[in-house]
Amino acid sequence: MREQTRGRVFLVGAGPGDPELLTLRAARVLREADTVVHDRLVHPGVLEHARPHARLIYVGKEGGGDSVSQEEIHVILIAQALLGRRVVRLKGGDPFVFGRGGEEALALEEAGIPYEVVPGLTAGTAVPAAAAIPVTHRGVSGAVTFATAYRGGSAPAWDFLAKAQTLVLYMAGSRLEETVRALVGAGRSASTPAAVVEAGTWAHQRVVEAPLSHIAQAATRDAIGSPSLLIVGEVVSLRGRLPSLVAQG
Amino acid sequence: MREQTRGRVFLVGAGPGDPELLTLRAARVLREADTVVHDRLVHPGVLEHARPHARLIYVGKEGGGDSVSQEEIHVILIAQALLGRRVVRLKGGDPFVFGRGGEEALALEEAGIPYEVVPGLTAGTAVPAAAAIPVTHRGVSGAVTFATAYRGGSAPAWDFLAKAQTLVLYMAGSRLEETVRALVGAGRSASTPAAVVEAGTWAHQRVVEAPLSHIAQAATRDAIGSPSLLIVGEVVSLRGRLPSLVAQG
Repeated sequence: MREQTRGRVFLVGAGPGDPELLTLRAARVLREADTVVHDRLVHPGVLEHARPHARLIYVGKEGGGDSVSQEEIHVILIAQALLGRRVVRLKGGDPFVFGRGGEEALALEEAGIPYEVVPGLTAGTAVPAAAAIPVTHRGVSGAVTFATAYRGGSAPAWDFLAKAQTLVLYMAGSRLEETVRALVGAGRSASTPAAVVEAGTWAHQRVVEAPLSHIAQAATRDAIGSPSLLIVGEVVSLRGRLPSLVAQG
Repeated sequence: MREQTRGRVFLVGAGPGDPELLTLRAARVLREADTVVHDRLVHPGVLEHARPHARLIYVGKEGGGDSVSQEEIHVILIAQALLGRRVVRLKGGDPFVFGRGGEEALALEEAGIPYEVVPGLTAGTAVPAAAAIPVTHRGVSGAVTFATAYRGGSAPAWDFLAKAQTLVLYMAGSRLEETVRALVGAGRSASTPAAVVEAGTWAHQRVVEAPLSHIAQAATRDAIGSPSLLIVGEVVSLRGRLPSLVAQG
């Protein structure tokens, strides 16, 4: 069959960090992969599912260096598939939630390369859980919104985000003060419970919790680094009532 | 140790359906469970990870019958743990995303029962992916909101939900017409691309796609049943550009 000789690409979500949060399907396609194209935010324990002789291609950003451009990633995926290989494109979280999986799927579709999508646990649900914060809770929050603090060029719709019952902001780290100012400026109460989680589900996970108006200072004080996630909403206060979960985090 | 003789409860997300979308950690705690307390929306293939002699307790709703009340579920979990058992409370999706996991965690905390949370793939990301819809996409949508169409008593905040770039409504099925009317009434354009997915990621998954104003009729025409998920937003139109993914769904 032509498809077999041409290879196939799997756009795979590796989950938020903890290698045990990989799905069974992701583990299987990794075991069967000839080539694994991976990002910085993928835990080394996830890569251990790949065969010893699988070719690993790193396309993330290292230190101050440039990351591989999205176009170049498309070229790598297509070229590896045209060599007849089973290619796993491994991304932190989920390919379709701030993972640019849609762009890669479109590029593969246009190139006529067979591909599949293997969803992964997105940080927006798994990281708050690891910090003892249920993103929805009866009587407290019946909706949750995921957004990124800053995305290529256009500013987030703060008027909308300020009204989210539970707001989870990905990649919140470096511009936390601006984010807080924007949310409060758009009407979010300064006393809303908030938390920042660094490296959620990883062994070195850290959490800081403070009212929204103080969360940026609290994160700076504790030298919270990236990757980090900001959670804003009354659900954050449930954390104080779940000390057993907090102790595990 | 007292904790060992007292047992332990694991609040485990089983994912949206497809048993291969279980996490490695969920599969492990299921293998180690003495008792599994499960819902209707858990795939039989997921339960196969439990040992042959594990005690299975079904607490979902069957046909027209009553479901087990949330309070009774708490009593069951606590009683099983007090017998010294490893108890898995297995839920469709993720325990903390419309899964009432927070309530169960609070009940266990108050009863002094050791417990852990094992996150699962929530339908809000995995089901659109299975229907070839990326919930976020550069230049199309930079935020996604998950909500339920109807939750105990209070009406959803339609003014807010109508402004979501991507809106994913869980349990949309039976009141789709009202939902559409509410969204359009709150200002969402009637021509917004929309899709309803029945039994997402299950073998019998079905998808209908139509402009928002016609999605309820389209779902009725195709006799879409529960569980179903409504997706509203420009991202739905990406589906038409990903025919290979659609063919897999």
